[in-house]
Amino acid sequence: MRSSLETVQSLLFTRDMLDPDNPTLFNAIHEQPALFITTRTVHALHGGRLEQYLDRHGLSRAAWVQVLPFSERTKELPMVVAICEAASALGLGRRARIVGFGGGVCTDLCGMAAAIYCRGISHLKIPTTLVGLVDAGIGVKNAVNLHGSKSRLGTFHPPEASILDPRFLSTLDARHLRCGLAEMVKVAITCDPALFELLETHGTDLLASGFTHPASAGELAIRLAVKGMLRQLAENLFEVSTYERAMDFGHTFSPHLETVSRNTLLHGEAVAIDMAMSTLIAQRKGVLAPPEAERILRLLRRLQLPVSSPFAELAGLGASLRTVVAHRNGRLNLVLPAGIGSHTFLREAESLDTACLAGVLEELGGPDA
Amino acid sequence: MRSSLETVQSLLFTRDMLDPDNPTLFNAIHEQPALFITTRTVHALHGGRLEQYLDRHGLSRAAWVQVLPFSERTKELPMVVAICEAASALGLGRRARIVGFGGGVCTDLCGMAAAIYCRGISHLKIPTTLVGLVDAGIGVKNAVNLHGSKSRLGTFHPPEASILDPRFLSTLDARHLRCGLAEMVKVAITCDPALFELLETHGTDLLASGFTHPASAGELAIRLAVKGMLRQLAENLFEVSTYERAMDFGHTFSPHLETVSRNTLLHGEAVAIDMAMSTLIAQRKGVLAPPEAERILRLLRRLQLPVSSPFAELAGLGASLRTVVAHRNGRLNLVLPAGIGSHTFLREAESLDTACLAGVLEELGGPDA
Repeated sequence: MRSSLETVQSLLFTRDMLDPDNPTLFNAIHEQPALFITTRTVHALHGGRLEQYLDRHGLSRAAWVQVLPFSERTKELPMVVAICEAASALGLGRRARIVGFGGGVCTDLCGMAAAIYCRGISHLKIPTTLVGLVDAGIGVKNAVNLHGSKSRLGTFHPPEASILDPRFLSTLDARHLRCGLAEMVKVAITCDPALFELLETHGTDLLASGFTHPASAGELAIRLAVKGMLRQLAENLFEVSTYERAMDFGHTFSPHLETVSRNTLLHGEAVAIDMAMSTLIAQRKGVLAPPEAERILRLLRRLQLPVSSPFAELAGLGASLRTVVAHRNGRLNLVLPAGIGSHTFLREAESLDTACLAGVLEELGGPDA
Repeated sequence: MRSSLETVQSLLFTRDMLDPDNPTLFNAIHEQPALFITTRTVHALHGGRLEQYLDRHGLSRAAWVQVLPFSERTKELPMVVAICEAASALGLGRRARIVGFGGGVCTDLCGMAAAIYCRGISHLKIPTTLVGLVDAGIGVKNAVNLHGSKSRLGTFHPPEASILDPRFLSTLDARHLRCGLAEMVKVAITCDPALFELLETHGTDLLASGFTHPASAGELAIRLAVKGMLRQLAENLFEVSTYERAMDFGHTFSPHLETVSRNTLLHGEAVAIDMAMSTLIAQRKGVLAPPEAERILRLLRRLQLPVSSPFAELAGLGASLRTVVAHRNGRLNLVLPAGIGSHTFLREAESLDTACLAGVLEELGGPDA
């Protein structure tokens, strides 16, 4: 028996979604029951305006806002169950939708809850962080940890729509902005030299201003990052056709770094360290010229992203690659920059010897130096 | 962004899968890591032969058998987590598969675990019950209860293959055989008059003999039931195109009956009562002639299936329909027999008045009589 499931996902770019005159959210909800799930921080910053918006548009009768204590530590199945219980307590059926309004942890947990509630209901993602805008909030994947084991559980469950509003970034702290920039740098290095130049030119200003100055550069950078990400994902959306994925750049060593740091390293910080390591591996393997490697490291440093960490130690990193190889169908598939805006793969685990990894860690100034 | 996910599901009919010379299971595993999940009962009956089979075919190095305490009461998310933890403890990656070897609860829980482990891995279903062979073991849906709320969580995650072996039925007790027959009767009434006649002629013998006598009639009945079920499901496999589903026959009142009975009524028994109720409703609505209604009730009784229960009381059933309507997009969509082998729908909740329901319960001899 052959079957096929088709999905359509809308990306709704907007400015100031919560402006009562902005129709984007109203149109996206179109009067179906909606359970908004948000975080304490987002609720404190935007909860009042959200409720005013829902009132103004007559949505309050069939829209509910639930605040949950999200964090990387609570990104586990019980939090998914809490969302499903909230939906069940409201008697929501299959035509209802879950709206994740927050950072990547929030939108991931909401996507997972929507994937399993009544065998899958619609969900909307409204990312409020830069990571959310350019990565977690636009993808079709969601993930939760299993007793701390990073992203061990999850589903592919495309959101019906993602509402992308850079206005939320103006209240975001610098550290979380930097994490989003790391994901944008990932796209820039692997497939978009224009985005790379944009980040070289305006990255520090955007970081300092919460993406409000220069606003046009900020919006353009977000659009390019989203476009690059989706172009890469589109050909292999459910990851069934190949295990070579450009968007895994920066995501080979980073899961281990996050885990051993007990999440004191944020995802984007771990990705930055991984990209720095991969850049120097590319240089040592002869696929990236030294000036280009230097240019990448310079951008990471300029954006105040870490390129090394006490948690980046040889034995642990080496051991962690076994899990990566299992996840990638027996191959390493380490993404390496092959210039600014292009990439290649180090396919076999055997190609990455301990001496090379040790040399890279030493050069970056980690604890093995 | 538009995307499409295509799946192919194989139905492998076989006789005596655990015969060392039977290649079906070996071919289905084809040397990828496999975690077999089974029940205590199935392990006691067939665990020894399964392990011999795996040894004989050199699969023992990458196949593991885990026994878990399954029941309708433990059909909750923690049991799904237990399966994922077993997979995680073995270090299984995305190329591994989970093999559910047991009844419908076991194969459902395995399907759900496979749906969320590493964002979805392959799974095989090897049903050992008649319900499994003709229903739970061939569908693409799985479900778990949420704090007892029936099937509140679940996913659509087609198995890579289902191995259908009637040999397992010879050790099944009569009560569970009857439950499977109820699902076969469902297919027969809604869309297959030949299957209905086959069950009229051979049903009691098949029940008495564990489907071994007459063996050819048993196999034919199973094939017809599977074929009818899949033909109905195929047009609307992910339940996105319509909320009118013939295979919901017997599944409107039954979830409530199962819940209030605290699962002392088995699923198939509740389905039988629901079918009897729907049959008399059809007669009262004038869509089914009295002799055909009588013929349906006679078959249910001949197969020793219940047509009434103390749990089938008016107030509770009436209230439960609100949940059904929410689940079916605001409509009742009660499936009614419109002859032997055809069906229609009672679409609007308002069409089913209390007097009609009370009359039907009285006629069937429930507590409201």
